[in-house]
Amino acid sequence: MKTPIALLGSALLMTAAAAAPLEGKLSSADIIAATTADDWRALDPENTLYIELEQGRVVVALSPSLAQNHVANFKKLARAKFYDGLSFYRVIDGFVAQGGDLLEIRAKDIAPLAAEFDTAAPEGFAFHRLKDKDGYARQSGFVDSLPAGYDPKTKRAWHIHCTGAVAAARGDEPDTASTEFYVSLQPTRYLDRNMSVFGRVVFGMELVQALRRVAPAESPDGDLGDKIVSVRVAADVPEAERTNLEILRSDRPAFEAYAEARRNRPEAFFVYRPDYIDLCQLSVPVRPVSAE
Amino acid sequence: MKTPIALLGSALLMTAAAAAPLEGKLSSADIIAATTADDWRALDPENTLYIELEQGRVVVALSPSLAQNHVANFKKLARAKFYDGLSFYRVIDGFVAQGGDLLEIRAKDIAPLAAEFDTAAPEGFAFHRLKDKDGYARQSGFVDSLPAGYDPKTKRAWHIHCTGAVAAARGDEPDTASTEFYVSLQPTRYLDRNMSVFGRVVFGMELVQALRRVAPAESPDGDLGDKIVSVRVAADVPEAERTNLEILRSDRPAFEAYAEARRNRPEAFFVYRPDYIDLCQLSVPVRPVSAE
Repeated sequence: MKTPIALLGSALLMTAAAAAPLEGKLSSADIIAATTADDWRALDPENTLYIELEQGRVVVALSPSLAQNHVANFKKLARAKFYDGLSFYRVIDGFVAQGGDLLEIRAKDIAPLAAEFDTAAPEGFAFHRLKDKDGYARQSGFVDSLPAGYDPKTKRAWHIHCTGAVAAARGDEPDTASTEFYVSLQPTRYLDRNMSVFGRVVFGMELVQALRRVAPAESPDGDLGDKIVSVRVAADVPEAERTNLEILRSDRPAFEAYAEARRNRPEAFFVYRPDYIDLCQLSVPVRPVSAE
Repeated sequence: MKTPIALLGSALLMTAAAAAPLEGKLSSADIIAATTADDWRALDPENTLYIELEQGRVVVALSPSLAQNHVANFKKLARAKFYDGLSFYRVIDGFVAQGGDLLEIRAKDIAPLAAEFDTAAPEGFAFHRLKDKDGYARQSGFVDSLPAGYDPKTKRAWHIHCTGAVAAARGDEPDTASTEFYVSLQPTRYLDRNMSVFGRVVFGMELVQALRRVAPAESPDGDLGDKIVSVRVAADVPEAERTNLEILRSDRPAFEAYAEARRNRPEAFFVYRPDYIDLCQLSVPVRPVSAE
């Protein structure tokens, strides 16, 4: 297995050798090295999807807190093997990879869902707010290690469209999503609060980035794009075949230390430090569950 | 040829049919449709590079205003056929694709360049400032249709690391860039003013996104990654073999109208309008030069 640390955007220097940090400050690598087991959370198999492509596996962390109805819907569809043999039929560079049932043969009997563009913050809502200003949200940060926005006036929260966001496609009207989904290939923040985001790719994003670019076919014998072999809930996959990952918890002090080391990178390589981190450019560390 | 409109990030709705704009406001599609020939600038063949891959052509618009020494250096190397047969040997998902001479066989006699992390704004500097706040730059906007930052106190400007930014790799010290270069696969703004950005991919970015992920090989017989067939200055390529593109000019009113239609998308599809555009999420329209 490839080492998936910093999978969602690496911080490697241009050179292989990392320069020593300045001023005795800790680099992000130092902070990650000093984390304890409690700073990490294993992905819950019941809230993890595997999108199996011919090219390999893509792992999606579902949101356990927000967009619950969409999470339930997509798990139910996965368990019904709805997506097996379908495809990523709309893959636009710099935008999204959209998959599902282009021809609406299987989808025609699936009831549409009410929109969950944002959600009343649930009981025990743990929002790790970043201090950095965000142009799209009153407050921005992380919920369950997934990037999120929050409005303290309305007390509503939503997952945002960073690269890897997984959301429900829809028609012109809000309450029309049912089976089709997309993965953002780049930050697409203008879709925030306009679409129901229900998870994020945390492993295998390079496979999504390399999906064949294709526009939706206009006829059944047109190019339907790269195939989806299957979509499965991880809990339904035999343990020996799972991709067991853990993600840095956003509700622990190590996460904020990590964010600060990204906001102002102490490595001597850097001559300019912006004292700022864009939410979508803060990669969330993901790693294999250790064998200990 | 594929239609490269909005190549740097599409604005397509989830559905094929575009909803009618609200309130009589113009959508970005309406604004583009109403542009005149004067609103577009053909890429200057003398300031355009073609990176030829086995998978196809990648077109880089070089900066005609900023990082001039780096532009001259990379053109000179292209004309010496320096890159022919080399490779993209460091391709990290969500970060950069770095190419050149990993083994430093050809590079060993090339003199390093002084850094051009930012540059004194040149005579006749045309900066199209966006009104939107930016966490990384005092002012952000576009120079020659390429995303840029500007500091009015120091009167210095720089190109920024949006997706497709082309910049010089370097060692730990600032003045060490010579032959190696990278393309940002995602916004990597923390590298702004820490690296010399000298151009941007304006066509073929989907080929860069799909480059095989590879870490630098530790020995000459290791995996050197996907091959670079050649790098050429467009002016040196026979006219019949060129990819003739034009880009929306950032110094004309149509550009700001376009930006506003992205800041607040008037299409009825959207239920939430952020009144904000992130610089790196404002795709700059590129299209084939018309046959007229």
